[in-house]
Amino acid sequence: VRGEIVTVVGLGLMGGSLAAALKQGDTSVRLRGVDTDPHVIAQAVERQIVDEAATDLACGVSGSTVVVLATPVRTIIKLIGRLGPYLEKGCFLLDLGSTKVAVVEAMAALPAHVEAIGGHPLCGRESSGLAAADAALYQDKVFVLCPLPRTRPETLARAEALVRAVGARPLLSDPARHDRLVATTSHLPYLLAVSLIAAAEKVSADDSLLWKLVASGFRDASRLAASDVTMMTDILMTNRTAVSQALAECRAYLDKLAACIEAGDEGALQDVMQRARRRTGVRSGGERS
Amino acid sequence: VRGEIVTVVGLGLMGGSLAAALKQGDTSVRLRGVDTDPHVIAQAVERQIVDEAATDLACGVSGSTVVVLATPVRTIIKLIGRLGPYLEKGCFLLDLGSTKVAVVEAMAALPAHVEAIGGHPLCGRESSGLAAADAALYQDKVFVLCPLPRTRPETLARAEALVRAVGARPLLSDPARHDRLVATTSHLPYLLAVSLIAAAEKVSADDSLLWKLVASGFRDASRLAASDVTMMTDILMTNRTAVSQALAECRAYLDKLAACIEAGDEGALQDVMQRARRRTGVRSGGERS
Repeated sequence: VRGEIVTVVGLGLMGGSLAAALKQGDTSVRLRGVDTDPHVIAQAVERQIVDEAATDLACGVSGSTVVVLATPVRTIIKLIGRLGPYLEKGCFLLDLGSTKVAVVEAMAALPAHVEAIGGHPLCGRESSGLAAADAALYQDKVFVLCPLPRTRPETLARAEALVRAVGARPLLSDPARHDRLVATTSHLPYLLAVSLIAAAEKVSADDSLLWKLVASGFRDASRLAASDVTMMTDILMTNRTAVSQALAECRAYLDKLAACIEAGDEGALQDVMQRARRRTGVRSGGERS
Repeated sequence: VRGEIVTVVGLGLMGGSLAAALKQGDTSVRLRGVDTDPHVIAQAVERQIVDEAATDLACGVSGSTVVVLATPVRTIIKLIGRLGPYLEKGCFLLDLGSTKVAVVEAMAALPAHVEAIGGHPLCGRESSGLAAADAALYQDKVFVLCPLPRTRPETLARAEALVRAVGARPLLSDPARHDRLVATTSHLPYLLAVSLIAAAEKVSADDSLLWKLVASGFRDASRLAASDVTMMTDILMTNRTAVSQALAECRAYLDKLAACIEAGDEGALQDVMQRARRRTGVRSGGERS
């Protein structure tokens, strides 16, 4: 990434952390930030996360060699529709959105001179905003890249270099496959966390002692429900089919467990429990602990 | 707890940690361990978690002033049925089981000279066994006590002193109320974790790339599925009605979320998501972060 002029659009947790990691890694990279919130702009410059910043998109991306879109997914899609005329030849466009089919579709409609590639770094946290930005956020994380059919090998190589520059590990996937799998590994756990808290809230309406009987297991299982609501709505709304399928798979197992418990069928119950327990050693990258 | 002779039956994570905490806190307490596994006995003596140990129940509890049952719940119930004749007058019996209705029912059938009280410390971990024992496990944790109608105030005071001696905070509850609430705060999150992993396992059978797309959110949400299967089976089987109700509440919210996603009803979706997000600051004891 030596000498690149990188504009990050959206200085939240993901965009801010990416800028911080790039700046920390290579002082020859010029970092620019774009955000609609002038307070965020001021904070990013003050913390030296970016070298310069703007609230205006056209101004912020003019003359850049790399533009990274780091807003909620549906804002990314809107920005792609507006950006084309402002991007110079040789500039490449990357996004950090958590769903890829709709984003890559929008990228395919960009003018021919714009090189684009879909991205999804698997390093979300339930915290959000520039205040939580951390140059180490991407370290050793999987960073999915979804090239377009027209993406040139040189552009893919530049994207991979950028991924490695922030400490992450590039993983190529096609967008539909990515979206189908993260529906189960990421969007489903979020919905389970929300449902768990909603159920607890309902039970606690009759007996507020419930909240005194919350221990670390409940907190771990419900942590994802703290995720930013706009970000999650965009994710769910751009991955409806795959999310519905993942929910249906999971509800089938919940129904099965419920039936075993009601019938007192310990054998069938323990079979599901044992299989799940054996899988809990799974780490990202597929290793087991 | 000065001068008490405490026998802990079952030297796993919970029993071993309780013994270690008592021994660390007051050197006048005499600690005895009972476990069916001679290797565990040897390890507990070697690590000086107990002063003496036995594989024989009658021998291990003879002459004790406090007996703590720290096995899986259905073993606790069996032990209560056998223990009566071996306990001396003035000895009190406490258990650490995660469900309380069935345990307290069994305690009510003990001979009149035995004082008993149900207990449930909320400090489980997904690890298990004496190797994971930790004198700090109970520190600042809620420790539910369920007195029997016949439990004398002096016995309750002794139980509360023991709870405080290991660093925990006593909380009185009746057994049915406890079991109904922990079905939602503890048993439901376990079943959600199991179902999440089962669904992921099923999807991964067609596409094993799934395990490379697992990040910290999935691991947090599925962590409880690593819990000991015998322990969890006993818990679920002694709390079937409340667990079924908790599952039904949660499945109703999952159905609602699924319907919103399928219909594209963002308003209703965000309403559930926002409410859940506001609740995620909950800490045990009811404070919010």
